Amino acid sequence: MRADYREALTGVSTDLVQMADLVREAVSVATTALLQADLAAAEQVISGDAHLDALHDDLESRCFVLLARQAPVAGELRTIVAALRMVADLARMGDLAAHVAKIARMRYPKHAVPDSMVPNFQRMSSLAEEMVAMASKTLAERNVLDAEKMADNDEEVDNLRTMQFRKLLDDSWEHGVEAAVDCALLGRYYERIADHAVILSSRVIYVVTGLHPEGDNWSIA
Amino acid sequence: MRADYREALTGVSTDLVQMADLVREAVSVATTALLQADLAAAEQVISGDAHLDALHDDLESRCFVLLARQAPVAGELRTIVAALRMVADLARMGDLAAHVAKIARMRYPKHAVPDSMVPNFQRMSSLAEEMVAMASKTLAERNVLDAEKMADNDEEVDNLRTMQFRKLLDDSWEHGVEAAVDCALLGRYYERIADHAVILSSRVIYVVTGLHPEGDNWSIA
Repeated sequence: MRADYREALTGVSTDLVQMADLVREAVSVATTALLQADLAAAEQVISGDAHLDALHDDLESRCFVLLARQAPVAGELRTIVAALRMVADLARMGDLAAHVAKIARMRYPKHAVPDSMVPNFQRMSSLAEEMVAMASKTLAERNVLDAEKMADNDEEVDNLRTMQFRKLLDDSWEHGVEAAVDCALLGRYYERIADHAVILSSRVIYVVTGLHPEGDNWSIA
Repeated sequence: MRADYREALTGVSTDLVQMADLVREAVSVATTALLQADLAAAEQVISGDAHLDALHDDLESRCFVLLARQAPVAGELRTIVAALRMVADLARMGDLAAHVAKIARMRYPKHAVPDSMVPNFQRMSSLAEEMVAMASKTLAERNVLDAEKMADNDEEVDNLRTMQFRKLLDDSWEHGVEAAVDCALLGRYYERIADHAVILSSRVIYVVTGLHPEGDNWSIA
């Protein structure tokens, strides 16, 4: 029974990492859909979200079975509870990638993001994607080395969002209401993806050390 | 030890209900701040959010202590794991109420929501507030009677958001980019508050019945 249990726990961890990689890919493909007005890419992310939701449900129920049948303690308990929350974070990040893809699809064949805003969104999406990749790596290797880089990226994402608002609300904005609303929501979605990556890494740190990371960038529940 | 444990578990449940009531109040006061351009109300919600975050941290650590020290099983385990997730939902709803209040504060002494959009936001915010109150009642009474009403409200919130977009993006929109962006984000915040209320109730149903509620409106993780 004990060997089965270890195996089940390892299986959950492995599948979590796999799910994190799928989420990273979803964010990447959603960005392609958005910045290149690529309809096929958008459809791929939107239909792929059901698979992420199914992974979520499967992993969640396996965690509950582990909790209920094995009465785990200390480190194992932390691992399972954190896994339950990470799987919810990952599903949410997948939803947000799908939201990005839906805006791309809605505006197709036009580009949702005006040319003058493309560099900002390029940078923002690449930071967000990198953060998801870092969270996945943190999860796979259970190391906490990337914490500072993660916080730096998160700060840059927030700054990019502030710059977006400055441009959208400036008198020189010439792209109309629709593009402004799209950009405001897109900025929100990428910002939330980045937030969830930070949260995900903080949960790994909690599993590894038993302590919650300090500092504002880690305080999000 | 066992009596202490029951007492600690009851304390967590009681404090969760109290936190839910504070969140409902935050949503209500944020709406006042927004629709009446009431700066004091906005400041109250924004500064009150730190208290909600502190409640979150306190409740979360008490749940971890219960999990780690008592190796609870079955119903108790479900209760504690659900509490851990509910406390995160509630903190998030508090954040979203603070986001609403920050937009109200940013536009003060102007109104962020143009007159023509006020009825929509009045209805949307009152539905969202009612949903938080229902979630809190479901939590306090551990009943599942409000599930259908909750799903109906959630659907109406989604419809109101669709109507908002229709108005914002219509050629007749005469309030400029800033008001459109504010309304798009405000609609998103209220929609997410409503979503979290649905999720919160679904967690109570899970605790009471051991089953996840069926249907699309309950499937959000």
